[in-house]
Amino acid sequence: MPFLKKYKELQKVVGKGIYGEPRTVLFAEIFEECDKFLSTLEIEDLISKVPGKEYFAFRMGGKSSRAVNKELFCRGMGGWDLLRECLSNNDLSPMSKTDLERTLYTLAISFCACIDIVKERDQQTPGTFFGYLVAYLLHWRLGVEPKTSIKIMSVEGEADVNLQTDLIYDLGLKKQKFHVPVKTSSRERAIMLWAHQKLLDGAYGIERYMGTPVLLAETKLDKKNREVVEICLPDQWKVYQLYIARLKRVYYLDMPTPYLRLQGEFPPIMVKSFADLFSEWDDLMPV
Amino acid sequence: MPFLKKYKELQKVVGKGIYGEPRTVLFAEIFEECDKFLSTLEIEDLISKVPGKEYFAFRMGGKSSRAVNKELFCRGMGGWDLLRECLSNNDLSPMSKTDLERTLYTLAISFCACIDIVKERDQQTPGTFFGYLVAYLLHWRLGVEPKTSIKIMSVEGEADVNLQTDLIYDLGLKKQKFHVPVKTSSRERAIMLWAHQKLLDGAYGIERYMGTPVLLAETKLDKKNREVVEICLPDQWKVYQLYIARLKRVYYLDMPTPYLRLQGEFPPIMVKSFADLFSEWDDLMPV
Repeated sequence: MPFLKKYKELQKVVGKGIYGEPRTVLFAEIFEECDKFLSTLEIEDLISKVPGKEYFAFRMGGKSSRAVNKELFCRGMGGWDLLRECLSNNDLSPMSKTDLERTLYTLAISFCACIDIVKERDQQTPGTFFGYLVAYLLHWRLGVEPKTSIKIMSVEGEADVNLQTDLIYDLGLKKQKFHVPVKTSSRERAIMLWAHQKLLDGAYGIERYMGTPVLLAETKLDKKNREVVEICLPDQWKVYQLYIARLKRVYYLDMPTPYLRLQGEFPPIMVKSFADLFSEWDDLMPV
Repeated sequence: MPFLKKYKELQKVVGKGIYGEPRTVLFAEIFEECDKFLSTLEIEDLISKVPGKEYFAFRMGGKSSRAVNKELFCRGMGGWDLLRECLSNNDLSPMSKTDLERTLYTLAISFCACIDIVKERDQQTPGTFFGYLVAYLLHWRLGVEPKTSIKIMSVEGEADVNLQTDLIYDLGLKKQKFHVPVKTSSRERAIMLWAHQKLLDGAYGIERYMGTPVLLAETKLDKKNREVVEICLPDQWKVYQLYIARLKRVYYLDMPTPYLRLQGEFPPIMVKSFADLFSEWDDLMPV
């Protein structure tokens, strides 16, 4: 498949730490190939158990993609072309928030859906790609390259532990640092987000690294009855935020409605649309 | 398969909270059926990349079980019969530690191996069974029944959060309480063990609940090249123990050697054989 070939090229470029034009071109080619491939597939309406949201799946023969949000998914490359222009002009104002949300979601979910169809139970490739995509977008927004590991001081006489992480941003002297875990979903592993925050708090001081995870969605498709549910545990998140550590933001591309209320409660958990990051990021910094 | 039929009966007995004889009989029947089934299978020697340990897999047609530790696995029901006698006499002294280790390991791995052969990529059934087995053994040892959820105080005006957990033991007034996560492996999710400890520490006070996870093994079999590796992250565990929370014990049925050294270092992490639990449990209690 052409999108897989381009994905392998992207992996090489990422491995070499190359940002800028080569990476932009590869993303464009991947999106275009995914869009072409998806346009040849059948659409199956799914039974949505998620209030206020409708989902479909792409199908080819006996194989089916994950659930795709109908309202957020857009055919064609229009959104990407506009986003790319906005990115290069360093000005997102020509895009409405809705346009931005739909474009970001479409870019992420298209590749994941393609992999669901052409591979067997492959969760790793979509997850890795989603990480690359978020890193690419944040690189544009923040202007710095992330690290994907962090040194944690061990005890005296022993070497520091080099902990593999998702994205770590150091914006420079006296500025906030960020830890951005990137996952296609959190589900029953959400506590790991707070655990990593607690570890960084312990090793570097509280909120020296701000935790701002980026998640794709919390939907789950039952392969047999074709029902889509959203697995949300807002009450558990509250006790994690109360007793383990504080996350500064949790960004979603397909925002689960049950988490919205957490913004206005105590302890607040600011669960927001990933599109919000682009406008509010500067306000997260204390200097 | 007879062992699956018996497992379903066990699920019902567990669901009804019945301990004692009915559960003992079902375990005996399951072990016997597993032993019978496994004795009909081929044995494949695996390439062990784990220093000092050898592994094999059961095979039937194109299907293969997980890796089984050669030294710990015993054919037949001899160990179980002796253990059962020891359990009912409340005296484990007739069993050497090695016998106990081999018996416990064989009981756990036999059912997992059977499921590997008869089911497709089913991790849940072996995990659930392993939880039942550990709960059964601990019930005998501690004399109390575990809870599998715990109330965590949320903020004022909101209901407590009922957190689903593995095994929670409350030994009574002024005595230590225990939180026993039970997993077939921890791998890259080990941080969740410390996160749950931190959550309980936060909600109830430090070490009000002692964390003593029980794990089966950390082996991983590469399906293609037939190599067995052990995935161990001792340096990461040290920083978890240093910066997140303190686990009192980590018990293994197939003890990964790289974790042994953590006993003698700072911060100490007492990673031990599950068989040790039976002799040392009383010493873990402060009263």
